[in-house]
Amino acid sequence: MLKVVVIGSGNVAQHLIKIFKNSGQINLVQAFSRKAETLLHLLEKEKITSSLADIKDADIYIIAISDDAITGVSEQLSFKNRLVVHTSGSVDMIQLDPKNRKGVFYPLQTFSKNKEVDFSTIPICLEAEYEKDYLLLENLANNISKTVISINSEQRKALHVSAVFVSNFVNHLYTIGDQICNEHKIPFNILQPLILESADKIVKLSPKAAQTGPAIRKDQKTIEKHLDFLSDENQKAIYTLLTNSIQQTNV
Amino acid sequence: MLKVVVIGSGNVAQHLIKIFKNSGQINLVQAFSRKAETLLHLLEKEKITSSLADIKDADIYIIAISDDAITGVSEQLSFKNRLVVHTSGSVDMIQLDPKNRKGVFYPLQTFSKNKEVDFSTIPICLEAEYEKDYLLLENLANNISKTVISINSEQRKALHVSAVFVSNFVNHLYTIGDQICNEHKIPFNILQPLILESADKIVKLSPKAAQTGPAIRKDQKTIEKHLDFLSDENQKAIYTLLTNSIQQTNV
Repeated sequence: MLKVVVIGSGNVAQHLIKIFKNSGQINLVQAFSRKAETLLHLLEKEKITSSLADIKDADIYIIAISDDAITGVSEQLSFKNRLVVHTSGSVDMIQLDPKNRKGVFYPLQTFSKNKEVDFSTIPICLEAEYEKDYLLLENLANNISKTVISINSEQRKALHVSAVFVSNFVNHLYTIGDQICNEHKIPFNILQPLILESADKIVKLSPKAAQTGPAIRKDQKTIEKHLDFLSDENQKAIYTLLTNSIQQTNV
Repeated sequence: MLKVVVIGSGNVAQHLIKIFKNSGQINLVQAFSRKAETLLHLLEKEKITSSLADIKDADIYIIAISDDAITGVSEQLSFKNRLVVHTSGSVDMIQLDPKNRKGVFYPLQTFSKNKEVDFSTIPICLEAEYEKDYLLLENLANNISKTVISINSEQRKALHVSAVFVSNFVNHLYTIGDQICNEHKIPFNILQPLILESADKIVKLSPKAAQTGPAIRKDQKTIEKHLDFLSDENQKAIYTLLTNSIQQTNV
């Protein structure tokens, strides 16, 4: 059984701990958290350490912490020549300390503390310095996901930027929709079927083919009505920029 | 059985024709299209007319055509004192000609020609001048959808603007994600689970609570890396505006 240590206690770390614990195929040896209590709802006390010096032997060490802290923590590890990976979409593999063998284990998903996810549907993007390490990571990833893919650091950066557009920014547009509904005493949940269908559509159609609405129809009258209707300057600016962008993309 | 005539041949009209035909509870008397051939794959020839003067008797006439044409077509109808509704999110009920009883039958969904939708999940937003007409519309709507809601013209406008943000603009962000993936030879479909999860999340969490990513973390380093990475000026402008907007919304 693959022996794994998870270093971190945030959203990604906690989701990984849960899935490794439940897989039955992976030996989650230990987890590291500066504050042990943040993981006590997931793991018995003996499996949690708050000292980097006390980290146990394992096949794979997964650093799942904030981007800025990855290099520093990889430097503070007291062992050498082992496989140490991070889980970040935007950090190059080479930012890991060279005393250990480097790799990346990037689950392409958005994790919120209070929302369970089906890990088997999450693509896991892998990178490793050495072929044998890639195979180790692949073995680990195949145990928890149906989609495992080799992605180099440059591609991962592109993927991460794309993910910001299709997930973080998309969620912000949901927030604006929610604000507008609230202002007019409309329950936001009546927009949910539309939101789900808009996401589901692009499983079958390319996003370009799926584009609808006043912008692509060049329906200037509706566009002006909408801009008139909006009172928030920030919402107006977003409406204008995205409308122009749709029209430029689809000439 | 409720007798219905659909006036129009676009996406919304075609979806309505299909669902009325299949409901078993509604008598779709006739459909009007300037070009009869656009509806021949859905209806027998005898049920299609291309002359407004030949429209038959019915309980409800549904005008499902482009916003700009609604008033004109409602004026050209040769009958009086019947219930005539439109399906538009952004046209006031009073823009219908006053010689007939006015109403609105607005299915809140995005319709594409090549994508089937489950009509029963689509909220239908109703408005009518007279109580008895509202009940007729409610009867019709309840036959095809689980969610029927009374929405006045002002609220419908707000709903339509919200829908542009959470559907049309969201789809454009998918398009940008697709462009970035293409440029870097990454299959766009590995973003699909992320896209579906981001939509699914807000069924359980408010969009504000669901917000993740570098903007809300105020992770300036990642934000700058991303802006550096993007070469398209339009994509940069959208990235900057939405990042600022997330940070302003969540102070």
